[in-house]
Amino acid sequence: MVKIEAKATLPKGWRAAGTAAGLKASGAADMAMLLSDRPATVAATFTTNQVQAATVRLDRARVEKFGQTRGVVVNSGQANACTGKAGMRDATDMAAWAAKQVGVGAEEMLVCSTGRIGVRLDMGKIRPGIEALAKGLRADGGEEAARGIMTTDTRPKRFTAVFDAGGKRCRVTGLAKGAGMIEPCMGTMLAFVMTDAAVEARALRRLWKRAVEGSFNRISVDGDRSTNDSAFLMANGAAGNEPLREGVAGWEAFEEAVKGVAFSLATEMARDGEGASKFVTVTVKGAKSAADAEAGARAVANSMLVKTSWAGTYPNWGRIMDALGYSKARVREDKVDVFYDDLCAAKGGLRTDMPEKALSRVLAKKEFRVTADLHLGKGEATVYTCDCTEEYVRINMD
Amino acid sequence: MVKIEAKATLPKGWRAAGTAAGLKASGAADMAMLLSDRPATVAATFTTNQVQAATVRLDRARVEKFGQTRGVVVNSGQANACTGKAGMRDATDMAAWAAKQVGVGAEEMLVCSTGRIGVRLDMGKIRPGIEALAKGLRADGGEEAARGIMTTDTRPKRFTAVFDAGGKRCRVTGLAKGAGMIEPCMGTMLAFVMTDAAVEARALRRLWKRAVEGSFNRISVDGDRSTNDSAFLMANGAAGNEPLREGVAGWEAFEEAVKGVAFSLATEMARDGEGASKFVTVTVKGAKSAADAEAGARAVANSMLVKTSWAGTYPNWGRIMDALGYSKARVREDKVDVFYDDLCAAKGGLRTDMPEKALSRVLAKKEFRVTADLHLGKGEATVYTCDCTEEYVRINMD
Repeated sequence: MVKIEAKATLPKGWRAAGTAAGLKASGAADMAMLLSDRPATVAATFTTNQVQAATVRLDRARVEKFGQTRGVVVNSGQANACTGKAGMRDATDMAAWAAKQVGVGAEEMLVCSTGRIGVRLDMGKIRPGIEALAKGLRADGGEEAARGIMTTDTRPKRFTAVFDAGGKRCRVTGLAKGAGMIEPCMGTMLAFVMTDAAVEARALRRLWKRAVEGSFNRISVDGDRSTNDSAFLMANGAAGNEPLREGVAGWEAFEEAVKGVAFSLATEMARDGEGASKFVTVTVKGAKSAADAEAGARAVANSMLVKTSWAGTYPNWGRIMDALGYSKARVREDKVDVFYDDLCAAKGGLRTDMPEKALSRVLAKKEFRVTADLHLGKGEATVYTCDCTEEYVRINMD
Repeated sequence: MVKIEAKATLPKGWRAAGTAAGLKASGAADMAMLLSDRPATVAATFTTNQVQAATVRLDRARVEKFGQTRGVVVNSGQANACTGKAGMRDATDMAAWAAKQVGVGAEEMLVCSTGRIGVRLDMGKIRPGIEALAKGLRADGGEEAARGIMTTDTRPKRFTAVFDAGGKRCRVTGLAKGAGMIEPCMGTMLAFVMTDAAVEARALRRLWKRAVEGSFNRISVDGDRSTNDSAFLMANGAAGNEPLREGVAGWEAFEEAVKGVAFSLATEMARDGEGASKFVTVTVKGAKSAADAEAGARAVANSMLVKTSWAGTYPNWGRIMDALGYSKARVREDKVDVFYDDLCAAKGGLRTDMPEKALSRVLAKKEFRVTADLHLGKGEATVYTCDCTEEYVRINMD
């Protein structure tokens, strides 16, 4: 059992920094850098949006071409999406400038941006920002870096886990930013998971795919949506272990650590969704297929009527029935059971005699589960989401 | 050119009433009845949600079986959805009680409900409500009936048009309720369009299908979504004209009147969407196909980030690009132009030198157009929608 801690302690060979480069009018931190003292094997997943930020296109090409990286430079405030060739030049320059400051090859740096779409990066601020980051790199700079990538996040998101690989103590540490919460809205999601374990490249890629599927793809900030979504797993081998792959001693602990850190980052994004006051785990089971369960769970998790009913502590299970009914999941109304935590609100599509007050007490909690059993098969899926308050609208009107 | 007026004047042979039966705690009007003095040919469309109110199932069967009706009794406050066999009994009883009070056959009445899902109709209030409605039926009761079907609507929705069919003066009048605005949220939409023209049954059905497609299906209250959505066109022939069908004198004017009334009701629903402060016409053109255009326009119209940016008078065209990019429409980022009214905000996926202030002035208007030209083909589609304010969330938290 690998323990996941809410700390930014970096693995060996990794340094990090954050700074306020002036991209945000508020003066808040808006840049971060992560650097490994040696090449790190990298696996990455990116948005599937047809409109993609310059940084996404650049990083995807570099990860595919080299499979290795020395680090990442990140800015928030400007997304460098819908910026055309000039944007691609800016992204390339930003990575190159960072590489130069830290003395690595220009193509060894990755680069991420998040923020407003359609405006050019303010390179006049980014260049000095990079210089400050390069000077500020520290082995204990993880927390600062986690702050530097925040946008509407109310708190930094960072988790770490220690495990043993063939007698070598290794660490996995992830930093992430979430924000715009609900799937049809997507704010950019960025996640950087570092380890000092040595890991075989293909095993790393396979694991990262599974870990992303079970974490960032399970929250209703849909990883598919924003122009800038990117998630990286980088392994620099500084721990000196025998390279990990499936079957090698320590692999299982490594897998658990990576999945645990990714899951913790992802659910923390849902907890800290824009304007969120409650964290809700939505499960659809008994569906005809896994795809049906997924479609049903996402329809519930993304329904504004459902999300606002949670915010209002209003056990309106009919809105859940409605969302299931218009989802792509096959539903037979007279078979559906709906639960708030373990309390059965509807059975066979009809209200139970469970007192509304008891149901409301569940919805008044900061965290609760919503489960719908379709009683049509064995398909099951869970999505992690949050409620929707007026604050969500307020944030996005700006 | 048929003139559409915002009035509830009923066609010949039609009477209507509204009343407060006490279903709403507020004491507001919550029931309505429409009655024809003779059988009316009826065409109807219903929700495609898999979860359907008892009233929807009952009306669908009656419309299919008889193709005629004498009228409709409606309540707001309780949806009679997810109420099982007992709900079907209530719906049947409600129609039968109404039929009895006005002296028509039990199966000659249609019945609609809207409101909270999963609770039984309060028949103890509905029965006396029906009696009051039956007593209150008046040739000038249209306005009262339009009020009786309102839920979170801020104003009654009713439009009327007069036209000539072979020398006979005919009228088309529609009453509707909208409310929960955005497609992923759907509040129930009910629409009742009456005419005194005589119309051949199949021609009526064909026309209603086209009229619904061009009106209620073009607003992002998706007619497909709620458990209770229903729209009726009822023709009683009291005008004494030769029955209308395609090719008969007066058909074109009739078609124009029906489409005009339906379109006015539909766009009024978007204008009066929950918490809406702005009415927005979203057009996607130059798409590879009509289906692509439709998918793109709906993605833009339903994006909470886009809708909140409109509310905030914030010309963030990047959010429009993003929504197009994750829609099912084929998009090539470097070909997309985005306009607010006639002002070009983005050309070839890049910002233009149009001053942001000029764009903001468009978004400050109560009504404006958003157009995206994908430059990939000839597909075009328009969706009518509204912005999303904090008020939307406030309404739905209750």
